[in-house]
Amino acid sequence: MKLCKYGTHRVIEPKEVLPQPANKISNDMNIYDNEILIDVDALNIDSASFTQIEKECSGDIEKIKSRILQIVNEKGKMQNPVTGSGGMLIGRVEKIGNSVSDKVDLKEGDKIATLVSLSLTPLKIDEIIDIKPDIDRVEVKGKAILFESGIYSVLPNDMEETLALAALDVAGAPAQTRKLAKKGESVLILGAAGKSGLLCCYESKKAVGQNGKVIGLVRNEKSRDLLKYTGFCNEIIVADAKNPTQVLNEVLRVNDGNEVDIAINCVNVENTEMSSILPVRDEGIVYFFSMATSFTKAALGAEGVGKDVTMIIGNGYTKKHADITLEDLRECDTLRNIFKNLYA
Amino acid sequence: MKLCKYGTHRVIEPKEVLPQPANKISNDMNIYDNEILIDVDALNIDSASFTQIEKECSGDIEKIKSRILQIVNEKGKMQNPVTGSGGMLIGRVEKIGNSVSDKVDLKEGDKIATLVSLSLTPLKIDEIIDIKPDIDRVEVKGKAILFESGIYSVLPNDMEETLALAALDVAGAPAQTRKLAKKGESVLILGAAGKSGLLCCYESKKAVGQNGKVIGLVRNEKSRDLLKYTGFCNEIIVADAKNPTQVLNEVLRVNDGNEVDIAINCVNVENTEMSSILPVRDEGIVYFFSMATSFTKAALGAEGVGKDVTMIIGNGYTKKHADITLEDLRECDTLRNIFKNLYA
Repeated sequence: MKLCKYGTHRVIEPKEVLPQPANKISNDMNIYDNEILIDVDALNIDSASFTQIEKECSGDIEKIKSRILQIVNEKGKMQNPVTGSGGMLIGRVEKIGNSVSDKVDLKEGDKIATLVSLSLTPLKIDEIIDIKPDIDRVEVKGKAILFESGIYSVLPNDMEETLALAALDVAGAPAQTRKLAKKGESVLILGAAGKSGLLCCYESKKAVGQNGKVIGLVRNEKSRDLLKYTGFCNEIIVADAKNPTQVLNEVLRVNDGNEVDIAINCVNVENTEMSSILPVRDEGIVYFFSMATSFTKAALGAEGVGKDVTMIIGNGYTKKHADITLEDLRECDTLRNIFKNLYA
Repeated sequence: MKLCKYGTHRVIEPKEVLPQPANKISNDMNIYDNEILIDVDALNIDSASFTQIEKECSGDIEKIKSRILQIVNEKGKMQNPVTGSGGMLIGRVEKIGNSVSDKVDLKEGDKIATLVSLSLTPLKIDEIIDIKPDIDRVEVKGKAILFESGIYSVLPNDMEETLALAALDVAGAPAQTRKLAKKGESVLILGAAGKSGLLCCYESKKAVGQNGKVIGLVRNEKSRDLLKYTGFCNEIIVADAKNPTQVLNEVLRVNDGNEVDIAINCVNVENTEMSSILPVRDEGIVYFFSMATSFTKAALGAEGVGKDVTMIIGNGYTKKHADITLEDLRECDTLRNIFKNLYA
């Protein structure tokens, strides 16, 4: 059998697709040479998926347990058949395949969180020990496989697991921000007081320096107060991200009449594309991290107003994204405390 | 009244939106200082819109005429209420507002095509002269307004109007390709034998030079023959763009086992995101020009396979995009002849 770094060698049905769109993959726990075996402690089910299952089972914990076991037995992975989504898992490295042992910075016994979706991860559950519906967490006895292309983070010793997980969940955003923002630039962050927004503000502030400007957009006074308390932004705007002319006018007001160099969209609501595009200068960058972004609204919207901007689809992965994000929590007490209080 | 370069001063209902999402805009043909008045010859209705209206009117030309007049009278613009789409128009510059006359390279009498959508262009139709359903064209007596941010192209004297329009329709793609591709790079074009694909292949070939490589992906033998005839590509692959592992393997086969630097997606079918992402090297670029692209499939897909690539949303506008595209037709007879035969 030809081994594939993306795990297609485990796809059962339909043939010739990747593990994520596959209906069924092999969860045989004898690993191939290019795989890593994980002894699983817990699944963090994607919020959309957990909510759907909870509803379907009328909130009955035993029924939820059976439904999860049924899905994993049928598909070989924990992919919600309605939402299509997965989640992540936490466990210890049990065995590392021969052909990947030199390529990974892991050793047996390391406690890791997988940063690829459960929707493509081979999984076998022996027993569900407990379910914590308030944090979408399923504690299990079980095993899983990480493919050669699979990304992960070794869980740090210096912070609570839940805190690390909350930050890792949005690790792409701050790491991408660090790559984009340059000294002296002006950066607009839409949804600045949310989980990914706060991390983007913090990274922007560090990147643009004293002569740059970070502008945070929030939707209400309460979010403004939180953002003000952090000190990450030079200017804070309270505006409706669905109203592009209002957003444009407010940005011009606080930025000496100038458009910004970069806009980063972290607003998880629809129809905020134009509010991200309009305030950006010619040849500037619009970075969409929001999963509510519509490709066509962005593409046709920019054309409609004759805006020559580069629009980037937020990639949840970039090199060292987990390290960068955990580093942010370590070096900034304000950030760490907010994450502890709100998300961990 | 405060004039806005995006034309919000003409929005009637609902308030505070841009002209495109507005239900109704003013088509009063007394222009403001920052507007351009156009004497309209013809509308090129967007294909999705025309097909919908044609169906609704059972193909009856008189009924189609009435329906178009009704829409324009109600909305002040030719925006199909079902599809939301518009199209473009052709006409002569009749009057240029005082505050924009220095900013545009236009004079009264110039024949232009507007490159912003009809879905945001104030329009008044006095009379529909003829409808050509085979090319979605509506010949009219009427007027329209171009906003300060509106983009346009002066129609060239050295080629047929229909030929120029066919090329201008996809002008963003070749112009963006010219900005992206660098000497010596390898470029994969998916949907290489289509209208935008051919232009992207041609621009790529010029950009990467002798030591670079252009790989065209097509879906069947007929398209392969057309592409081979052009000589634009170093390698041609016949594969299913919905099958990422097949596409990856074929690219590796013709590219000495290496991933490419850039992939450009011009395939107008769904579920081709992963075929564009997988063959690209670490830190390479994926450029989505296809309107069938799903934002979430691209974002989650790249993360799922741990690919650190920059994914760009195709912007239909970039500076000099019309000039670049018409230049391509002028300098390459092969391209011009194919466009004449297939699209004009």
